[in-house]
Amino acid sequence: MKVVDRNICPITRASRIIGDQWSLLILRELFFQEPRRFRDFEELLGVSPNTLSARLKKLEQAQMIKRQMYSTHPPRAEYCLTEKGRAFGPVLEALYDWGDAHTPKET
Amino acid sequence: MKVVDRNICPITRASRIIGDQWSLLILRELFFQEPRRFRDFEELLGVSPNTLSARLKKLEQAQMIKRQMYSTHPPRAEYCLTEKGRAFGPVLEALYDWGDAHTPKET
Repeated sequence: MKVVDRNICPITRASRIIGDQWSLLILRELFFQEPRRFRDFEELLGVSPNTLSARLKKLEQAQMIKRQMYSTHPPRAEYCLTEKGRAFGPVLEALYDWGDAHTPKET
Repeated sequence: MKVVDRNICPITRASRIIGDQWSLLILRELFFQEPRRFRDFEELLGVSPNTLSARLKKLEQAQMIKRQMYSTHPPRAEYCLTEKGRAFGPVLEALYDWGDAHTPKET
């Protein structure tokens, strides 16, 4: 890792997209299983609808996930990883390994 | 990465510590150079003193960084990575690689 101009540092750019707890957990869920529906995330993560909606929009705008309609009446969407989202796998794996080795097992 | 009980998932545990933009950037700065003083982070990252103070405390409580006094009058502290913080290197490297390949260069 080399020192770079901080405004264009890849870690700065990445952290603007995934620098919050929920985005990491939403991506994790999609690596576990896809597609996932809005309700799945709500139930699995215990995240409020407003926060979830904002995080999904952010990840969709960043082209890490894509949204597909599975019902039009009523309108219902499900989410999948894009190629860019799938490329995030090594980050989650590194985070998993670090968490496994260095954070307490108790919650 | 295997599906695990979400409450004790290593990614959940890790994201409670580093799941925000500033913590990732504070850790990045310490990988670039240590020790770093409070003022260094303020200047390098453009983060407000209150937010910075909260994030440094959180990382210190999680034993990822350690705080040492370099002056007693007035009291002034500097920060270094602990072994646990240094073990986070592969996560930042994976994040750097992903950000480099998958986020726009423009800010």
